[in-house]
Amino acid sequence: MAEKITPREQDFSEWYQDVVLQAKLADYSPVKGCMVIRPNGYSIWEQIQKDLDKRIKKTGVRNAYFPLFIPESFLKKEAEHVEGFAPQCAVVTYAGSKDLEEKLIVRPTSETIINSMFSKWVQSYRDLPLLINQWANVVRWEMRTRLFLRTTEFLWQEGHTCHATPEESEAETRQMLKVYTDFSEETLAMPVVPGRKSDSERFAGALRTYSIEAMMQDKKALQAGTSHNLSTHFAEAFETKFLDKDGKQKHVHQTSWGVSTRLIGAMVMTHSDDKGLVLPPKLASTHVVIVPIMPNAAAKAAVPEAAKQLAAQISAAAELAKLPYELGISVDLDDTKQAGWKFHEYELLGIPIRIEVGPRDLEKGQVVMTRRDKGVKEFVPLADLPGKVCKELIQMQTDLLEAAKKRLKDATYSVNSYTDFKTQIETGGFFHVSWCQSKDCEAKIKEETKATIRCLPLNEDFSAKPDSRPCLVCASSKETVTAIVARSY
Amino acid sequence: MAEKITPREQDFSEWYQDVVLQAKLADYSPVKGCMVIRPNGYSIWEQIQKDLDKRIKKTGVRNAYFPLFIPESFLKKEAEHVEGFAPQCAVVTYAGSKDLEEKLIVRPTSETIINSMFSKWVQSYRDLPLLINQWANVVRWEMRTRLFLRTTEFLWQEGHTCHATPEESEAETRQMLKVYTDFSEETLAMPVVPGRKSDSERFAGALRTYSIEAMMQDKKALQAGTSHNLSTHFAEAFETKFLDKDGKQKHVHQTSWGVSTRLIGAMVMTHSDDKGLVLPPKLASTHVVIVPIMPNAAAKAAVPEAAKQLAAQISAAAELAKLPYELGISVDLDDTKQAGWKFHEYELLGIPIRIEVGPRDLEKGQVVMTRRDKGVKEFVPLADLPGKVCKELIQMQTDLLEAAKKRLKDATYSVNSYTDFKTQIETGGFFHVSWCQSKDCEAKIKEETKATIRCLPLNEDFSAKPDSRPCLVCASSKETVTAIVARSY
Repeated sequence: MAEKITPREQDFSEWYQDVVLQAKLADYSPVKGCMVIRPNGYSIWEQIQKDLDKRIKKTGVRNAYFPLFIPESFLKKEAEHVEGFAPQCAVVTYAGSKDLEEKLIVRPTSETIINSMFSKWVQSYRDLPLLINQWANVVRWEMRTRLFLRTTEFLWQEGHTCHATPEESEAETRQMLKVYTDFSEETLAMPVVPGRKSDSERFAGALRTYSIEAMMQDKKALQAGTSHNLSTHFAEAFETKFLDKDGKQKHVHQTSWGVSTRLIGAMVMTHSDDKGLVLPPKLASTHVVIVPIMPNAAAKAAVPEAAKQLAAQISAAAELAKLPYELGISVDLDDTKQAGWKFHEYELLGIPIRIEVGPRDLEKGQVVMTRRDKGVKEFVPLADLPGKVCKELIQMQTDLLEAAKKRLKDATYSVNSYTDFKTQIETGGFFHVSWCQSKDCEAKIKEETKATIRCLPLNEDFSAKPDSRPCLVCASSKETVTAIVARSY
Repeated sequence: MAEKITPREQDFSEWYQDVVLQAKLADYSPVKGCMVIRPNGYSIWEQIQKDLDKRIKKTGVRNAYFPLFIPESFLKKEAEHVEGFAPQCAVVTYAGSKDLEEKLIVRPTSETIINSMFSKWVQSYRDLPLLINQWANVVRWEMRTRLFLRTTEFLWQEGHTCHATPEESEAETRQMLKVYTDFSEETLAMPVVPGRKSDSERFAGALRTYSIEAMMQDKKALQAGTSHNLSTHFAEAFETKFLDKDGKQKHVHQTSWGVSTRLIGAMVMTHSDDKGLVLPPKLASTHVVIVPIMPNAAAKAAVPEAAKQLAAQISAAAELAKLPYELGISVDLDDTKQAGWKFHEYELLGIPIRIEVGPRDLEKGQVVMTRRDKGVKEFVPLADLPGKVCKELIQMQTDLLEAAKKRLKDATYSVNSYTDFKTQIETGGFFHVSWCQSKDCEAKIKEETKATIRCLPLNEDFSAKPDSRPCLVCASSKETVTAIVARSY
C-alpha cells in the first residue's frame, strides 16, 4: 500500500516529492543530482515526445543527432556563451586510459557543436532555411536539484535553425514560442504566459529570449520552454556563412529552442492533488481501469466476464469515436482477486477513469464510474458507459485546463506600490508591475523579495507593452514597460 | 549533383563511406570517433525505433531512463565487467569547476548503474519479473572507427531484466534473440544467423551471450544484436535480492540485450548498390517520388495537375489497402521545374519507387514507374498505378530479403581442411567448421586468418550442435561442435 502523501497545504515541496516518488515517476540515483525516470514517468515523456515531435515536424523541422561531447575550445568561441555555461560543465579529461589532448565538455546545450557542422553544410542561400531538432540528454552541474525540475542530467529536445535574414530567424523564434504555447495548453492542459525575457535572463549567447511561464498550484512560476533568437552570434564565432542571391557571403541568422523533462514536474504541480497524480488524458498511457468487485462466489462467477465485455465495448467505442487522442483509449482490466484495496493506488497513479463493476450494480444494469479529477462516484447505465467514458475523457482534458486557467487568473495581480508588492509576494502569484528596464531595479527586486522578472508580456507585434505607471522600484516614468514578477522554480 | 560513388567491386569500404556521406546519412564530427547522424540517417533510426519498440513492449517490457554517469566504484564491482570495459571508458574528473570526489564514467553500458536501482526496487517475488528497456547514448572509446559500424558514441536500446529463476532468465535471453531475429528479417529485410558466442566473445560479466550475425555484400560478418544471460553475476555484486515464496532471500537472475545505430550501417551494406542507398520500404520515410516531366509550355500546364492527382490516388489506395507499413505510404511530389536531373539523386537517396509523369505518356494514359532495387522502367496504365504501387512496395520488401538470403546461402560453406579454409577465407563467407571448443584453436584461427568464431549455431533446445568431424585446427575429435567462422566488422 502507498505511504501517506503530505498534504499540499502543509508543505507543497514535500507533497511534490511524495507524489513523484510514490507514483513511481522517478527516483533518486546514486549519482549526485541525477535522477532515474521510472516507467510511469517515462511513459509520460513518451507521450510528450510523440505529440510535440509531430508539432515540430509539421513546421518543416527534421530530427538529427550530434555528439555528446564538445571540444573545450568550441565552447569558448562565443564569449557570453562560455561565461554562462562554463561553471556548470562536466568535463571528460581522460578516455581510453589516456589523458585527452583537448578536454571534452559533456554538452550542456549544443549550439557550438552544431554550428561546427552547420558551417560545413551551409554554402548557399539554397541550403536555407536549415531546420534541425535533436532529442537528447544534456548535463548542467547544479548545486540544488529537485526531481524533474532541476537535475544535473535531463532529457530535452533542442531545435537549431539557420536563416538568410534576421526577419526569418525572428519569425522562427516566435513560431516555436507559439508551438510551445499551444502544446502546453492543448496537451499538458497547462496555461502559460508567453513573453520576452529581460536581458539578465537571456540565454547565454542569444540576442533575445522568449519563454513560456506557467503557474504552479503554490502560485510560483515555472519556466516551461524557451525560444532564442541567436542572431549571428554563433555564426560569427563558427564562420557559418552562405553565398546569398546577391553574390555576397553572409552570416546565417539562427535560432534555438527547447523544452525538457522538467515539463513532467510542471504537469504534476499543475494538476495533481493530495491523493496523488492527476494526469491529463492526453498524457496517460492507461485511461480507464475496470475493477471487478467480487464479495462472494456468485460474483466471482459473473463479474469478471461482465467487466471483460465492458472493457471491449469501451475500446470499440473509442476507436469508432475517433477521439482526439492519438493512441486511442487504453483500458486496463484489473484481474487480481481482491482489487478493492487498490482504489488508492489507482488514484495515486492518476488513471483518469475508474469503473467499479459489482454484482448488485450489474443486477440493476449499471456500474460505478469515478473521474480522477472530480473524485465523485457516479452510477452509469451499462448501455451508456462506452459513450460516457469517451465524453468524460475529452471533458476532463478541458476541465483540467480550465481549472488551471482559473487558478492562473485568480493569482495574477496588478500592483503599483513596492511596499504592497513586498507583502503580497509572500503569498505567491504573478504580479504585473511597471518596470523602467534598468538592471538595478531588476536586481533590487530579486535581492529584496527573491522574486524575479519572469517575462515581459507582449503586444501582437511582439513588442513589450509600454506601462503608463511609474517604475515599481525607482518610480521613474521613462521607458516603463509591463513586467511579470514572481517567485519561481 | 552527387559526386561519383566508388563501385563496390573496386573498394567495398570506400563504396560504403561514399554512400553514407553522399546520401547524407551521417557525417564526421570534429570530436574524434564521434559521428553526426544527419536527418536522412536519423529518420531510418526513427523507423527502427518505432518498429522495435513495439516488439519489445509486446513482451511486457517498459521503457525507463537511467543516469549517463556511472560512479567508478560501481564499474569495479563485477570483476570481468570492469576488465572488459575499463580500457574503453571516457571519464569525467571535474564538474561544476571542481574536482570530483569520485570519478564518473560515461556509461559504456548500464548494467551496474541499473543494478544499483534494481537492488532498491526488488524486494519480493511479487516484484518479478522486472522488465526494463532504455533508449540511450553510450560511449566506448574506440581506436578505429567507421560511420555507424563502430563509433565512440552510439545510440542504442539496452534491455535489463530480473527474474526469479535461472530458467526464466534463460527463456528471456532466448526470447529477445528471437525478437531481434524476426525484426532483422521482417523489417530490415536482413537475414541473420542466431547463435551462441564462444566464451572469449562473451559480454564482460555474462554467463552466456547469444548474437545474431548478418552477412554483408562483401561476405564479411556483422554482429547485429546481442542477448546476454547475466545469471546472478551483477545481482551478487549489487546485492539485488528478493524474498522468494519459500521465505528465503535469493539473488535475481538477470538478462541484458541490445541493438544499436550500427544496424543502419548493416542495412546499407546489405541492400545498397553502386548508385547509392537501397532502402527496404519499411525503413523509408518517403516511399514514392513523383517526377513531373515538362519539356514544353503545354506540358507545364497539364502535367503538374495530373501528377498531383496521382499522388492523392496513391495515398488513398495505400490507406485503404491497410498495408503492413505502420506509417502508411508517404508520397513526395517533386515540384521543382527541372526535375529530370534529379533521377540520380532519388537513386542515391534510395526512394523505393520513382514515377515519371510526362505529357506523351499521359496522352497514352500511362506513366513510367521504376523500382529502386530493380532499376527497370515500366509503363503502367494510370488506372492500375495506385494498386501497383502498393503491391510493388510489399514485393520489394520481400525481394530484398530473398536476395539477401540467397547471398547468405551462396556464401556459406562447410570446410573440413584448415589449409582449404585459409585459402577460401580470403574471398569471404561464413564457414561451418568443427571446433573442439578450446581457446587455443580459436586463438590460432584468429591469429592466422583474422577470422573469428562468430557463433555456434544452435539446436532447437539452444544447445550447440555436436559435429562429427575432427576439429578444424587440432584434429581432436573430443567435444567437437559446429562453429561459424568468418572475418567480420
